[in-house]
Amino acid sequence: MLNARLTFAVALTLATSLLSQAQVSTAVDPLPSWNRGPTKAAIISFVERVASEGSPDFVPVSERLATFDNDGTLWAEQPIYFQLAFVLNRVKTLAPQHPEWKEQEPFASVLNGDLKTAASGGKKALAELVMATHAGMTTEEFEKVVIDWISTAKHPQTGRLYSEMVYQPMLELLAYLRANGFKTFIVSGGGIEFMRPWAERVYGIPPEQVIGSSIETKYELRDGIPSLVRLPRLKFFDDKEGKPVAIHHHIGRRPTAAFGNSDGDYQMLEWTTAGKGLRFGAIVHHTDAEREFAYDRESHIGQLAKGLDDAKSKGWTVVDMKSDWNQIFPIAR
Amino acid sequence: MLNARLTFAVALTLATSLLSQAQVSTAVDPLPSWNRGPTKAAIISFVERVASEGSPDFVPVSERLATFDNDGTLWAEQPIYFQLAFVLNRVKTLAPQHPEWKEQEPFASVLNGDLKTAASGGKKALAELVMATHAGMTTEEFEKVVIDWISTAKHPQTGRLYSEMVYQPMLELLAYLRANGFKTFIVSGGGIEFMRPWAERVYGIPPEQVIGSSIETKYELRDGIPSLVRLPRLKFFDDKEGKPVAIHHHIGRRPTAAFGNSDGDYQMLEWTTAGKGLRFGAIVHHTDAEREFAYDRESHIGQLAKGLDDAKSKGWTVVDMKSDWNQIFPIAR
Repeated sequence: MLNARLTFAVALTLATSLLSQAQVSTAVDPLPSWNRGPTKAAIISFVERVASEGSPDFVPVSERLATFDNDGTLWAEQPIYFQLAFVLNRVKTLAPQHPEWKEQEPFASVLNGDLKTAASGGKKALAELVMATHAGMTTEEFEKVVIDWISTAKHPQTGRLYSEMVYQPMLELLAYLRANGFKTFIVSGGGIEFMRPWAERVYGIPPEQVIGSSIETKYELRDGIPSLVRLPRLKFFDDKEGKPVAIHHHIGRRPTAAFGNSDGDYQMLEWTTAGKGLRFGAIVHHTDAEREFAYDRESHIGQLAKGLDDAKSKGWTVVDMKSDWNQIFPIAR
Repeated sequence: MLNARLTFAVALTLATSLLSQAQVSTAVDPLPSWNRGPTKAAIISFVERVASEGSPDFVPVSERLATFDNDGTLWAEQPIYFQLAFVLNRVKTLAPQHPEWKEQEPFASVLNGDLKTAASGGKKALAELVMATHAGMTTEEFEKVVIDWISTAKHPQTGRLYSEMVYQPMLELLAYLRANGFKTFIVSGGGIEFMRPWAERVYGIPPEQVIGSSIETKYELRDGIPSLVRLPRLKFFDDKEGKPVAIHHHIGRRPTAAFGNSDGDYQMLEWTTAGKGLRFGAIVHHTDAEREFAYDRESHIGQLAKGLDDAKSKGWTVVDMKSDWNQIFPIAR
């Protein structure tokens, strides 16, 4: 009888436990592409602590701000920055209108497909390429050019549209944060007007929440039509120390959470996590040579050294793409 | 019998008409401080046309953006810009730390209460006063200074707090637009960091939706603490042609509606209302010498001439403060 009672009690406990596990597992996982483990747990714990009323770490909705780098954090950046692929494409498209480019570096090398020689001109050559392809038209004309390119251009290795080279786990993270009252922002070294035309469709981030590098524009009447004309002059370079400056200029508040992948994001994470109250900083570490690309300290693009060195002492979470993500890109449609 | 029927029909019609009037008048008026008339009707018609699904002028929520000038549009600007009152107050407060100001213009005249001589130095003198009072500290220190001032400083003529010198009809308009899915922005010639600390409390506009003039900031570690330090160097002057440029830089989309009061807002209204689809541009005309101030073409502050000349041909609504508003400032608490 005692045994029977005990057996019954054990069975009941077991059943209850199984039932409660079943309930947990039937609750919708907001981050299905993230494997269970400390990284996913850290994200969920942070969000629950800042978003739960009565929590000692509660943050009002108006102050729940999350900033994301773009290249290497929300979408891939290898083998070259995607915006550079856009630049090279534009040089080829515009070449017939610029016969002088055949003789003029860095354009001549780009047209000959010799990127090494083109790149030997360093930052000056790059700036020339950017200005020749990004300036001289109205903002509306440039927007159209970007939309045409992003709708058709494909990644040289995967054959996917560049807009499909975004990270599925980060799309889930953006949606999860927004579902918990966060306003999500892009804070990228890439061009602000290169990202805005598609960031809302691809990431759900509207133009006014996209921050990036920019060139000057000028207001004028063109044939009587009010226009903003893009000038070949750098306005702001949104990288490293520039990121906290741009965040302050555009947002005016310190983010609650910041996500990056390279040392260009170091100051953004530093500024964010130095704020009062609970903050969250995370670095996406490119560790998966098979499904994406593996690079960090020695990489030409997205170099990550200081961030790795200091992540532990700064309390930043390092996302290991290989072990933390069960999927990299969205399933192709 | 015919008469009886007729009488009954008339009575019924009358009753129905009275009932329908009663229903209309019991519906809550979203703009109670606006008198009935063409101005109020134009605002409500615009909002209903862009916000009603199925309307040929329907605008999706994500594109419903309204920009507002601040000085003279959302709050008063006489007898001097309120930010200038802040500057003069800061010069006096900081004077003990700057004994050299006793001999140095324009500071000496400000300290002697001789604003005419101080102003004789023109823009250069004004810039010196602004930089001496707005730069040299961290962004957080400056925010605190602004909050201290706005919480205590009073208008010399009304004795009200400056934050109570806001226009009640415009507060109602901001709320009405937001209730209809609009995102509301400030686009002011005033300092972006002078407005952000109180704009959310006073106008319901969060810092990331406040655009204005700015000085440069620099990211650095101060005693190991990540800081943004304000530098005595103009970054952007958000007036006239600058307003469409700033709107594009911060928002990245053309507003659906824009509200200003001076020729400094001309290009913002021009840019806004030149967009495709239904747009709305309005100018607040200061016509009420008794309850506020009356000024336009010849005014030193908030000069309005070109805007008045062109409003009709541009299709802009001119708000006549005297006849369109039954209340100017919020009822004092």
